[in-house]
Amino acid sequence: MKKYNVGIIGYGWVATAHIEAINKSDHAQVTAIYSSRELDDQALSEQWGTPIKSYTNLQEMLANPDLQVVSICSYPNQHKDQAVQAAEAGKHLILEKPLALSWADCQEIENAVNKAGVKSCVCFECRFSNQFKVIKSLIDQGLLGDLHYGEIDYFHGIGPWYGQFRWNVKKDPGGSSLLSAGCHALDALLLCMNDEVVEVTSYSTKSNSQIFEPYEYNTSSVTILKFKNGAIGKCASSIDCLQPYYLHTHLLGSEGSLLDNKFHSMKLGTDKNNWSNLALKLLDSGDVSDHPYLDQFNVFFESITQNIDMPLTSLRQAMKTFEVVFAADQSAAEGRPVQI
Amino acid sequence: MKKYNVGIIGYGWVATAHIEAINKSDHAQVTAIYSSRELDDQALSEQWGTPIKSYTNLQEMLANPDLQVVSICSYPNQHKDQAVQAAEAGKHLILEKPLALSWADCQEIENAVNKAGVKSCVCFECRFSNQFKVIKSLIDQGLLGDLHYGEIDYFHGIGPWYGQFRWNVKKDPGGSSLLSAGCHALDALLLCMNDEVVEVTSYSTKSNSQIFEPYEYNTSSVTILKFKNGAIGKCASSIDCLQPYYLHTHLLGSEGSLLDNKFHSMKLGTDKNNWSNLALKLLDSGDVSDHPYLDQFNVFFESITQNIDMPLTSLRQAMKTFEVVFAADQSAAEGRPVQI
Amino acid sequence: MKKYNVGIIGYGWVATAHIEAINKSDHAQVTAIYSSRELDDQALSEQWGTPIKSYTNLQEMLANPDLQVVSICSYPNQHKDQAVQAAEAGKHLILEKPLALSWADCQEIENAVNKAGVKSCVCFECRFSNQFKVIKSLIDQGLLGDLHYGEIDYFHGIGPWYGQFRWNVKKDPGGSSLLSAGCHALDALLLCMNDEVVEVTSYSTKSNSQIFEPYEYNTSSVTILKFKNGAIGKCASSIDCLQPYYLHTHLLGSEGSLLDNKFHSMKLGTDKNNWSNLALKLLDSGDVSDHPYLDQFNVFFESITQNIDMPLTSLRQAMKTFEVVFAADQSAAEGRPVQI
Amino acid sequence: MKKYNVGIIGYGWVATAHIEAINKSDHAQVTAIYSSRELDDQALSEQWGTPIKSYTNLQEMLANPDLQVVSICSYPNQHKDQAVQAAEAGKHLILEKPLALSWADCQEIENAVNKAGVKSCVCFECRFSNQFKVIKSLIDQGLLGDLHYGEIDYFHGIGPWYGQFRWNVKKDPGGSSLLSAGCHALDALLLCMNDEVVEVTSYSTKSNSQIFEPYEYNTSSVTILKFKNGAIGKCASSIDCLQPYYLHTHLLGSEGSLLDNKFHSMKLGTDKNNWSNLALKLLDSGDVSDHPYLDQFNVFFESITQNIDMPLTSLRQAMKTFEVVFAADQSAAEGRPVQI
Amino acid sequence: MKKYNVGIIGYGWVATAHIEAINKSDHAQVTAIYSSRELDDQALSEQWGTPIKSYTNLQEMLANPDLQVVSICSYPNQHKDQAVQAAEAGKHLILEKPLALSWADCQEIENAVNKAGVKSCVCFECRFSNQFKVIKSLIDQGLLGDLHYGEIDYFHGIGPWYGQFRWNVKKDPGGSSLLSAGCHALDALLLCMNDEVVEVTSYSTKSNSQIFEPYEYNTSSVTILKFKNGAIGKCASSIDCLQPYYLHTHLLGSEGSLLDNKFHSMKLGTDKNNWSNLALKLLDSGDVSDHPYLDQFNVFFESITQNIDMPLTSLRQAMKTFEVVFAADQSAAEGRPVQI
Amino acid sequence: MKKYNVGIIGYGWVATAHIEAINKSDHAQVTAIYSSRELDDQALSEQWGTPIKSYTNLQEMLANPDLQVVSICSYPNQHKDQAVQAAEAGKHLILEKPLALSWADCQEIENAVNKAGVKSCVCFECRFSNQFKVIKSLIDQGLLGDLHYGEIDYFHGIGPWYGQFRWNVKKDPGGSSLLSAGCHALDALLLCMNDEVVEVTSYSTKSNSQIFEPYEYNTSSVTILKFKNGAIGKCASSIDCLQPYYLHTHLLGSEGSLLDNKFHSMKLGTDKNNWSNLALKLLDSGDVSDHPYLDQFNVFFESITQNIDMPLTSLRQAMKTFEVVFAADQSAAEGRPVQI
Repeated sequence: MKKYNVGIIGYGWVATAHIEAINKSDHAQVTAIYSSRELDDQALSEQWGTPIKSYTNLQEMLANPDLQVVSICSYPNQHKDQAVQAAEAGKHLILEKPLALSWADCQEIENAVNKAGVKSCVCFECRFSNQFKVIKSLIDQGLLGDLHYGEIDYFHGIGPWYGQFRWNVKKDPGGSSLLSAGCHALDALLLCMNDEVVEVTSYSTKSNSQIFEPYEYNTSSVTILKFKNGAIGKCASSIDCLQPYYLHTHLLGSEGSLLDNKFHSMKLGTDKNNWSNLALKLLDSGDVSDHPYLDQFNVFFESITQNIDMPLTSLRQAMKTFEVVFAADQSAAEGRPVQI
Repeated sequence: MKKYNVGIIGYGWVATAHIEAINKSDHAQVTAIYSSRELDDQALSEQWGTPIKSYTNLQEMLANPDLQVVSICSYPNQHKDQAVQAAEAGKHLILEKPLALSWADCQEIENAVNKAGVKSCVCFECRFSNQFKVIKSLIDQGLLGDLHYGEIDYFHGIGPWYGQFRWNVKKDPGGSSLLSAGCHALDALLLCMNDEVVEVTSYSTKSNSQIFEPYEYNTSSVTILKFKNGAIGKCASSIDCLQPYYLHTHLLGSEGSLLDNKFHSMKLGTDKNNWSNLALKLLDSGDVSDHPYLDQFNVFFESITQNIDMPLTSLRQAMKTFEVVFAADQSAAEGRPVQI
Repeated sequence: MKKYNVGIIGYGWVATAHIEAINKSDHAQVTAIYSSRELDDQALSEQWGTPIKSYTNLQEMLANPDLQVVSICSYPNQHKDQAVQAAEAGKHLILEKPLALSWADCQEIENAVNKAGVKSCVCFECRFSNQFKVIKSLIDQGLLGDLHYGEIDYFHGIGPWYGQFRWNVKKDPGGSSLLSAGCHALDALLLCMNDEVVEVTSYSTKSNSQIFEPYEYNTSSVTILKFKNGAIGKCASSIDCLQPYYLHTHLLGSEGSLLDNKFHSMKLGTDKNNWSNLALKLLDSGDVSDHPYLDQFNVFFESITQNIDMPLTSLRQAMKTFEVVFAADQSAAEGRPVQI
Repeated sequence: MKKYNVGIIGYGWVATAHIEAINKSDHAQVTAIYSSRELDDQALSEQWGTPIKSYTNLQEMLANPDLQVVSICSYPNQHKDQAVQAAEAGKHLILEKPLALSWADCQEIENAVNKAGVKSCVCFECRFSNQFKVIKSLIDQGLLGDLHYGEIDYFHGIGPWYGQFRWNVKKDPGGSSLLSAGCHALDALLLCMNDEVVEVTSYSTKSNSQIFEPYEYNTSSVTILKFKNGAIGKCASSIDCLQPYYLHTHLLGSEGSLLDNKFHSMKLGTDKNNWSNLALKLLDSGDVSDHPYLDQFNVFFESITQNIDMPLTSLRQAMKTFEVVFAADQSAAEGRPVQI
Repeated sequence: MKKYNVGIIGYGWVATAHIEAINKSDHAQVTAIYSSRELDDQALSEQWGTPIKSYTNLQEMLANPDLQVVSICSYPNQHKDQAVQAAEAGKHLILEKPLALSWADCQEIENAVNKAGVKSCVCFECRFSNQFKVIKSLIDQGLLGDLHYGEIDYFHGIGPWYGQFRWNVKKDPGGSSLLSAGCHALDALLLCMNDEVVEVTSYSTKSNSQIFEPYEYNTSSVTILKFKNGAIGKCASSIDCLQPYYLHTHLLGSEGSLLDNKFHSMKLGTDKNNWSNLALKLLDSGDVSDHPYLDQFNVFFESITQNIDMPLTSLRQAMKTFEVVFAADQSAAEGRPVQI
Repeated sequence: MKKYNVGIIGYGWVATAHIEAINKSDHAQVTAIYSSRELDDQALSEQWGTPIKSYTNLQEMLANPDLQVVSICSYPNQHKDQAVQAAEAGKHLILEKPLALSWADCQEIENAVNKAGVKSCVCFECRFSNQFKVIKSLIDQGLLGDLHYGEIDYFHGIGPWYGQFRWNVKKDPGGSSLLSAGCHALDALLLCMNDEVVEVTSYSTKSNSQIFEPYEYNTSSVTILKFKNGAIGKCASSIDCLQPYYLHTHLLGSEGSLLDNKFHSMKLGTDKNNWSNLALKLLDSGDVSDHPYLDQFNVFFESITQNIDMPLTSLRQAMKTFEVVFAADQSAAEGRPVQI
């Protein structure tokens, strides 16, 4: 029997990916959905295969003692209030990215979570992807040596052909190029460089294409980072490019380099003039249905059971990424380096 | 009959590439070489197939009225004085990069050249490579639309296996990662973005590898740029990486993108989810014998004949690149954005 | 709400592809089907998701004032009479290829359509394929210059493994190698060469294979064409080959060449000794379910609304192709060039 | 010791390829060269490694009884007279293509050769290439069954970058697109189809490119052929295309097809939807130094020794190809099919 | 109407593949299933689309006169008794591999089948795969000449991720690496070498990996074989490797070699330094749903109708393979060559 | 100044490769050559660029106190006597493979070397190839875990096209398929498996091809091996195959597998269904000029200087391989397993 009943907050595109993954897990099932629209419980239950009750009143759902977990899939500008309420109601939290639209809001969520003592999982699910698990293993096996420079970038044109476009174009709730999408790349960069960021500088701009005209904010940015150990990094984020999806990854270390699924390692003595290749599944699509939610949620549910912070994507961990994201956006806005 | 006699200043590795290209040209030939070492004129003449007189006194060579052109292939810290003397002697100038080791020195060269009214050619020969001629054509045909973001990077480990390493490791004459090698990438970026730079910020660091320990300066840097028209750019330069040579090029525009030899263009209606490919010769080696000197020198000699500034790599043009290089190095040193 | 109700004439293999595409369109839906066999209305409606009434009497269906459009998917030897009747009933016409089995019949259809003032769409849907849209853009951007020679060929063995084989083998309604299938290639050639044909010569033959023995006519032909502007072309059509499907395309122009999805253009300065590649979806199957009906039909329905002749595949346009097809078959039969 | 002494007639580009191949052979060596220019015997002997005497008077050279063989490498409009004189002098003949510029001249050569009883070798050396030896083996093993359609085409832009361009552009001696170059493709087609041609029709045209403006004749043609056994064929020849060299080969038979180095054979039961590949050296360059002269000449010298007509490229065999070439050019000129 | 009713014995994983293939055949259908568990007839009939009656008593099912054929899909240690009973009941037999767990049991089955005069089909379905049909054609066309050495190996890690693992790990019924899985490779080797085996020697071992710890027998073996005609062979079988599935095939003959889907043949004159490639579907998965059961069963049903032994996989044929399998396992156990 | 003078014994094909490598080394130079033919000292010195004295009397050369090292490049049946004499003369020894033609001769050499206390280097130079250095690193990094099965094979047709063929076909000095060539593969297998061999069984045979008819011994063999730690291995050696050169390598371990330049490692978490690729230079030619002699000789000369046994290819190490080779040949000859 499954241990955890999960309530979904916000019933849009990303919610469907969450429900599918949660119901595939051996640990949990979705039994409640909150939406501002009235939903048909029977249709929902049939569609998802678990008995689902819908709510248009969030407090009412949160008051249900049979729910142990909620997953927040609403618009980013609703995240903070809902997360705080849910934490106060004692529910463990799955939090879609972006966590919130300001650093202050993020901190408010963290305070509520800490106070309530609930567990948390932020959807930086790329950390659970085959691509980054292999890259992390390569680093951990020492095949690249000490990293001194890293680039991970997000190139994915989010135009009218993409579900998120409709609301993403607005400053509120879109936020910025990094906040609305590129934070996945920045988060992966922090995972690989594995050190504290001490300063960022960021520049931003916007395409002349009519397609991206509706955006109320700069849709391309490039951010450079200084780490405590002296290493440096860079993260470009473009949601206004016209090209194949590309999560560009380039890491330089004292024993070799990695470029996407290619590498060179002096530890193995391979030919420095040619790349060796890793058989891995590249993240080559922005489609949420491709994202490794299931692995991430399984780890989260197991962590709840063991009463520990989940590895890799706990709120505590994710806060470090969002702190850098907000600093980068501040740098681009104010035209100066920002210390962290 | 060939029109121009060329004198070489400094007889090292890069000089051999210059002599070979000049002698292949229909316009000119090498007839003099200045070196601090005594050289054997007969051996030189036999090796290169033109009658060559060697000098250990530079003024003596510059006094020769049969020389119309000199090519400066000496150590970077000698460039400025020699260039000024040669210009004052009325010789047209081929100038290897880096032009000089400070912006003030560059300006001194420019003043001398302007005053003497001689023609100049700075060795940013990548502008004459098949790779960048094709990329420029693609941009000029409008297949990428207006560019709003561009990255061109230099990844080339310059270790003991590479001729330049011996002197390159010293602060003087090596200078910086950009000055000693990466300026090719920055120059190509300016060629493609085709606009004035207004601000740069740069961070730099160094590999932990023993191989690169001898370097007296930071061997990896990343620089971000703001252009007058609002576009932004980025140039990484690493001479301490361990991987295949890679002159990474990524340009985003309002009609498509280019990534190395791949592109997508909405103008052609190709499949946005896959790259189209251009048959071009990628600059995939740091070896000067691979560099397109011949084309560049031919254009230079023709420009002398026509009494015009050469296109693409005149001193006037190259000064814009070096101004950005020195600004970037200053930014990295002082820890703040630098306006231009 | 969808604007147009469509009636299907002939309920065979190709009809299913039409119905699927029409029902996917935002502009129209299938509401009637004429077949010589009795069909079950409820089963049809369930299968296709729109309320469908079936008829065994064509006049009865054509008399229905709620039908604005009919699509003729019957055997080729029935096309002419049905098309004339439908035009006379004031229905806009979708016409599968071949239009009819003689040039006189084609003209009779055209007269009826002109007289009735109805709109028409002939299924040369390859003009709406990604492959030929990209090729046409490349030509229109001037990347190939002026074309002086073009080959587009149809190599697709139509044997017992292929639905159409059953009736295709008969002289009536199969017609010829070009009429029954190869006319797609010839039509694409005319699209690319973009000029009037003034003369054709054609030779034809037949494979010795037992597999193709049932054919009553020559199953391979090769036709050469002269255009008014002096250019020349060639179209081979083989439905008796044993190999992968291949719509071979080779165009020569004053600035470059195109070969299938590869090209060289002097306008871009790419390497003449190697092909550049276009990311496009090659038409590599004869399966009608792969054909871009939806795009073509959408354009047709929009043209009806705007009361204009549809671009690319109107009857007026398609008549030019069929005139060449019939001239080629006449040339092969009579052993002499045929002027147009 | 080598058996045969060879005299070269005409000392241009192609002659150097002949001399190199002859001197590499175990059977023969070049000992004489006729040229209208005075040549330096010592320099020639040193360059080629055999003792060479030069002549400016052809009769004088032909009078030398120590010469058993002559190779005719002069301009095409000189071939006939020189070949007749050489045959009358009792020399065995190597004849570069084109044999001559008219069918009458070809016949005159054949008569002289037959009368003198000398052996002959026409330079259709592609018959000795790995590519066509493998293709012929595949056909002879029955893997393609009976061929009913074949295309072999010559696509090779002969512009100023190509040695032959200088004289090739003139009507005399260039002749036509087929005569000056494309006859290699037509000859290979006859080799593969292995049957008598009974009729040809040919159309020709010319590129609008300035590059090819100097040509005095049509530089692209397409010819279709009827064979005695009912099979048909096609040969395009373009010396005014701008693309990689391409000797396009496509053969259809009753058991499978061959496309360049790819094939499908029902005899092997391979997957009909994908091509199998043959490891062979494609003729992908028009450079005579790539051509398999050595194999061809070895076979010729052995045939002289055995007193038999050489296989594959004797004059008798080559006459069949030239008869078709002249018929095709006549067809293009007169605008009608030509019977053979 | 379908001719044969088939009863399935044992309702596990492989049974589902059999039922699907049998019901796709035009000759037969599954109408009965024997299982030790009670099954729901209505659910079975709906799932498989044929009216199925289930039995928990085997004799009862075998007594049904409407069943002509049974397919034995139970555990290997049940095969012998069930096969003998079914043969005695006059049913034609489909026998999954391994036939039985001892050579004596195999012989007992053969005796029962011979006595009953029923037809038999052993599931060495790889003989009906595209891969081995093409390889056999290549051999039969003489393209490899006489084979003197052959290797066919089975590399497929059967761990917890694979259905069969659960029972496969036990000595009874798993047997050995060859018996439980590798016999497919050995059988394919005998098919290709096409001669009697006279001696085998085999060595076996086991991986140190925890994953394969549950196996009660050696999971990797390598066997070498002597054939009557002097040829030799080798078959490795590893079910404890960690890599992609690989049915490695390498055959050496007097006219060429074959390596998986690559070959060289002197008969075709291809380049000996490069492999030619065959378009074929490699057996690259151990998944039974990929196996060509349908073709094999169709041939079996047709053989029953014609009252002949089926080609390629009759019991008589398969006995030869199992005799070698048991000899190899005996050799590994006793540490000495075993004669056959 | 170079430290060691080397004398060559036997001046054939392999000697030229040795001389070239030795003279490229910074440590040594060839100054003497012993040959049964008279050689021209001046010509030798000019060809090789070092002053060389030739000898037809071996003792005379060995008596020269300026020679520190000799390299034995004569026929295999001369190795033993020459090696013993050279050791007795106090020369350090480079020994080409095969060491000798019997195990007793090998032991005699070892005794002489041990008694004389000279250093030795056996030409198993593949141990110094990039391919096996990378493979060894991969194993040593633990990426494959513990190896339990390994195959390394030698497939290289040695026919009339190959220098060695002339004498290789004779039983003496050719020996066997393993002795004359395949021992490289067996030696590489022992390098990788890194354990003592306890038993071998070998079968051998011969191709029916006329090409290999001159061989006096079996030209293909397959050997299986048991190691002390329980692992098993296999080495096929074929010098009568007709295919590209292939040093097939397949290693199975408890953490992954390696196949030629491909691998899978659970340590990295790469996709088990696809191979990762290593950038390495495969040994894909039997040409001695491709062999990594220089690296091997440099290590040998440095070992002499340090007065240590050279790593990887000392005589002591190589004896282990030859012991297995002779055991395998004995097994094939006597038809039984042979213990070691």
